[in-house]
Amino acid sequence: MNQQELPANAFINPSGSNKESIENFVSKALHRIISVISSSEIRSSLPKEINIPTQTIPEESIGDEKLIDQLETLLLSSINPSHPGWIPHMDPPPTTASLIGDFATASVNNNMLSVEMSPAFSRLEQQVVDKICQMFSLGPNASGVLCSGGSLANLQALAVARNEKLNTKEEGVQKLPKKPVLFASEVAHTSIQKAAMILGLGQDSVRAVSVDSESKMIIDELETGIKQARNEGKTPFCVVATAGTTTTGNIDPLEEIGKISQRENLWYHVDAAYGGALVFSNSHKDKLAGISGADSIILNPQKWLYVAKTCAMVLFKDQNQLVENFRIGAPYMEEDEDLINLGEISLQGTRHADILKLWASFQHIGRKGFQQLIDESYHLTNFLHNKLKAINCIQLASTPEMNIICFRGQPKWICSSRWDEWNKDLQKYLLDKHEIFFSLPTYNDGKWLRTVILNPFVNKETIKNINQGITSYIEKTQEYT
Amino acid sequence: MNQQELPANAFINPSGSNKESIENFVSKALHRIISVISSSEIRSSLPKEINIPTQTIPEESIGDEKLIDQLETLLLSSINPSHPGWIPHMDPPPTTASLIGDFATASVNNNMLSVEMSPAFSRLEQQVVDKICQMFSLGPNASGVLCSGGSLANLQALAVARNEKLNTKEEGVQKLPKKPVLFASEVAHTSIQKAAMILGLGQDSVRAVSVDSESKMIIDELETGIKQARNEGKTPFCVVATAGTTTTGNIDPLEEIGKISQRENLWYHVDAAYGGALVFSNSHKDKLAGISGADSIILNPQKWLYVAKTCAMVLFKDQNQLVENFRIGAPYMEEDEDLINLGEISLQGTRHADILKLWASFQHIGRKGFQQLIDESYHLTNFLHNKLKAINCIQLASTPEMNIICFRGQPKWICSSRWDEWNKDLQKYLLDKHEIFFSLPTYNDGKWLRTVILNPFVNKETIKNINQGITSYIEKTQEYT
Repeated sequence: MNQQELPANAFINPSGSNKESIENFVSKALHRIISVISSSEIRSSLPKEINIPTQTIPEESIGDEKLIDQLETLLLSSINPSHPGWIPHMDPPPTTASLIGDFATASVNNNMLSVEMSPAFSRLEQQVVDKICQMFSLGPNASGVLCSGGSLANLQALAVARNEKLNTKEEGVQKLPKKPVLFASEVAHTSIQKAAMILGLGQDSVRAVSVDSESKMIIDELETGIKQARNEGKTPFCVVATAGTTTTGNIDPLEEIGKISQRENLWYHVDAAYGGALVFSNSHKDKLAGISGADSIILNPQKWLYVAKTCAMVLFKDQNQLVENFRIGAPYMEEDEDLINLGEISLQGTRHADILKLWASFQHIGRKGFQQLIDESYHLTNFLHNKLKAINCIQLASTPEMNIICFRGQPKWICSSRWDEWNKDLQKYLLDKHEIFFSLPTYNDGKWLRTVILNPFVNKETIKNINQGITSYIEKTQEYT
Repeated sequence: MNQQELPANAFINPSGSNKESIENFVSKALHRIISVISSSEIRSSLPKEINIPTQTIPEESIGDEKLIDQLETLLLSSINPSHPGWIPHMDPPPTTASLIGDFATASVNNNMLSVEMSPAFSRLEQQVVDKICQMFSLGPNASGVLCSGGSLANLQALAVARNEKLNTKEEGVQKLPKKPVLFASEVAHTSIQKAAMILGLGQDSVRAVSVDSESKMIIDELETGIKQARNEGKTPFCVVATAGTTTTGNIDPLEEIGKISQRENLWYHVDAAYGGALVFSNSHKDKLAGISGADSIILNPQKWLYVAKTCAMVLFKDQNQLVENFRIGAPYMEEDEDLINLGEISLQGTRHADILKLWASFQHIGRKGFQQLIDESYHLTNFLHNKLKAINCIQLASTPEMNIICFRGQPKWICSSRWDEWNKDLQKYLLDKHEIFFSLPTYNDGKWLRTVILNPFVNKETIKNINQGITSYIEKTQEYT
């Protein structure tokens, strides 16, 4: 190497010649990063100001020290998810093992594209995925792959569903005599629509099935919808059930939807991106009864299993359906006798080994540790739920089934046309005065407050603080009216 | 928190209460990881044995020490990409800044889905992407997004192309009167076929245009192909050019393809996943002349810019085409007045902030540092090229235009039906005797050896070693025949 323009520690030298300099640079940077995260509690969960370096690509190195300074500035301008008041989204603080896992993954930079390029991680991914298939009781032929996020996982499941049911892998959708349609509840995740658009089915191919007052798909409406679509000359091919709806965390009637799908010869996909984590809790996994009937399931360990994002997976009851209906071979790749190149059966080609941080988190926390995290968040959710029920003007969007509560004030002393504004102000008030941050989704045409009690640093004090914040805001707004 | 089943350092406590324990765990793990990478040279570039832990999900924590031990075992069972003999693929050792960037990204676990969830990184991504659009001279309306890998980047570009040219976002492909087809050279990356399959066009919608002896698309064949498809009652809508073909690293005639695309009203996409990095070298960027005429471009910093995977991007000449033809809104997300939520305009929803490691690498290495890495790899490629040309029985697949050489032995003293076997044995010999690892792609129905001189630890000694290995293998096999 003769590269005088490069910093001497630009890369880790395989001869060990710059090991000391690398250790020094990495330790300084990591010490600073850990210090930022370790002091999260004294800052707000949302940054008070956002500072972005203006220089995007300098001609020459800015040097180690300045880089670390700017990294710190960027972290301080970011969301602060381990602050106990950060409870608005399905985005947890990450496990320590995730951080180490991501560093290890990057350092060795293997490629999940092929077995040749990631001999250990390709095998590890298959082992872990197969074990999770077993936890969902998907049967002996089940398997799957990791994906960079739940939207991709849903997209891949629906691509396989489309190709399996409509035979579109080789010749596509245009040749079909009838318009294909799929069914998902009206509160299913928007990645289903996005997937339908990408898959060439069109956004309008997603038939929204109505939900009941608990945000669950109404079975009769699904049956009617399928019948109606057939009468209209469409081709129903798939039903998507949700286990853990985005806004309210409810679970569709999985068993019944599975039966209808089977009877009607439709692919049965369960979007368990969020709720799938319940298989880790012996106390709560029965909430997923019926999920073993699915043809495909997605699960995002990046949510309720606390693995740094991204980490998601798509599982298939029959691995052969994935291989036959999705695989595109790569002639520049070596084949392995026993193992499939994962890039050939996943949406992505080159892929980061997300498996390592997932595996490391499993080893460090253990199944029981995850059970406790899940069970604890249920306790705190119940505690908050009881507090909210006791407040007169608060309405719940549904009965919580997970660690998500979606609610809004409907204060009788204010005209209902101003309720959205009132709730928006409540969100702001809780952040400004109580350091509590809720999200503000639109649901049933109104603004609601949503909390996801996922953060392991939330405790009873946090819940009391929420309760106190809401009641004092109510008193304050009552006073002024 | 009352979580007795969890290790005390399972998460970084925001109060700082376990900071010492976290620092201790992280430093020990990182010290071990850096030691593994710093001693890469004394091991083979391919692991001699592969050891995978059999335990996938233990009931309880295995503890910090055992976790670190097992991590080390996994790294030692992985590909060792900074070994100077690792030159088979477009997979470099990563910049040190990438490792720090990935650790920082994971630690704060922001979500690129929305501005609310990654206020600093969403802005940073836009700044950096816009700057790279300028480097490609894409004009004032250009922008784009990062994606987890080049296959997704190609998929997103082609999704926008399909929706823009065929108006399929809302109603899909089935309603179209004619079969849509796109054109790419016969040596284009297989992710184009994968994308066509996913997009509901079908694998058969990709029309392979023949290449000349230099692996470049033949312009006349493209023109004939478009005319022929129209005569067959098909609808051509897109042409894909490649800047840096996977097997031989050649560049299609970008300028001419752009002109034809414009004249025929077809979307013009350039897959510059590999070769796009040349814009960082003042000495070599003219090889991309004509790329500014593209409607979309993909670039993978995870390849020739040495950023830990995954890190890829898709750029559009007109950001409005991306927004209008791809955006799916998410009602549970807050909107920002000036900034678009990146999850609404990308294939992925939740996304890791790959921008941070890219930005950190730019700051640490600088534009000139990347230029030197690129220029140096050209020097070494030329050096090897000259050595290979001097060996009688070696044939080149094309004239190298980048740092990739694809060649094979065609030894006259052996029947040509046994050449594949001879080359396969040469690959094995070089690994066993010289610690040099080439890949063995299939090209023009034969087995070829391919090297990508990307690794910054390759030097003239490595090239001499390759030359010596090949010549001694030739002598050895001549002797025995």
